[in-house]
Amino acid sequence: MRVSVPLRRAYKLINHGPTTLITTASGERRNVMTAAWVMAIDFEPARVVAVIAADTFTRELVEASGEFAVNVPTARMLDAVYAAGKASGEDADKFATLGLTASPASMVGAPLLEGCAAWLECRVVPEPQMQERYDLFVADVVAAWADDASFVDDAWRFPGDEDRTLHHISGGVFVTSGQIVKAKP
Amino acid sequence: MRVSVPLRRAYKLINHGPTTLITTASGERRNVMTAAWVMAIDFEPARVVAVIAADTFTRELVEASGEFAVNVPTARMLDAVYAAGKASGEDADKFATLGLTASPASMVGAPLLEGCAAWLECRVVPEPQMQERYDLFVADVVAAWADDASFVDDAWRFPGDEDRTLHHISGGVFVTSGQIVKAKP
Repeated sequence: MRVSVPLRRAYKLINHGPTTLITTASGERRNVMTAAWVMAIDFEPARVVAVIAADTFTRELVEASGEFAVNVPTARMLDAVYAAGKASGEDADKFATLGLTASPASMVGAPLLEGCAAWLECRVVPEPQMQERYDLFVADVVAAWADDASFVDDAWRFPGDEDRTLHHISGGVFVTSGQIVKAKP
Repeated sequence: MRVSVPLRRAYKLINHGPTTLITTASGERRNVMTAAWVMAIDFEPARVVAVIAADTFTRELVEASGEFAVNVPTARMLDAVYAAGKASGEDADKFATLGLTASPASMVGAPLLEGCAAWLECRVVPEPQMQERYDLFVADVVAAWADDASFVDDAWRFPGDEDRTLHHISGGVFVTSGQIVKAKP
């Protein structure tokens, strides 16, 4: 079940470096794109930065709407995650071709993907120079959610191997999240 | 053994989102700091972005030298990785207190840490506005290295559990890199 995560703790959902799916929408158009280059940059306000390349349909929709959602997929979605990074959604709806089910977000127009482990709804902080020079988008997290089987009491757990997060290395090779280890306090 | 990685493929060393140790040096002063908020932002030129908070000794040394190194530690270094994120190196040399051994880099003054799995030598691209507003430092990777037991034929492998990379969630809780999985081409 999808449960709300306080914004102050939203960074925990991506702090371990998972590869994400960025969803976008503008008017009747929508898209989903794989993005490994997404990370937290602040706790309060909860803020992220994402690389969204200049020649992509996602970029067009982000610039039109000023919003996107960061979805954290699980190993169960491996093939769809890789495929969503290869094809453009400009001509064909990738949700349909990849078997991804979208549901409405709470604060942004971009949809959330069913079956993911966590979700961040994001609103772009306009930084034209960063966007043009580096394809870097700063965004405030305006709502955060986690699957309550995977993120319990503000901590990640991965109930089964298929529930682990995916971390792309390159060319369709990923490493999944492994064991939880604790350092000496 | 430390072997050179072509710059075009340097992103693979951090693409799966490991928590890193950032090393710095300026004159006789040097430091090491834990940094989870480091990611690749381009392939060619090989480029990264890192959050380096305004009130840190590392920030002072990065601003003085225009350089830093990103070290990718292994699970064997768990306690030192967490501890390096808690104490400041301004008053005491953290290398000594944490038992970290530094060796010279090839292109930058910042040292490289023995026992890590990968290393990126980085030169800051001056972006004063990004640095001031978001503590974000853009840097070109000018040399990249990997341990040849962990990164073979341009691919990560983790020979033992202690050789896995560390991915910080929060408060000293990390997840290690898990299984390598391959998506359908």
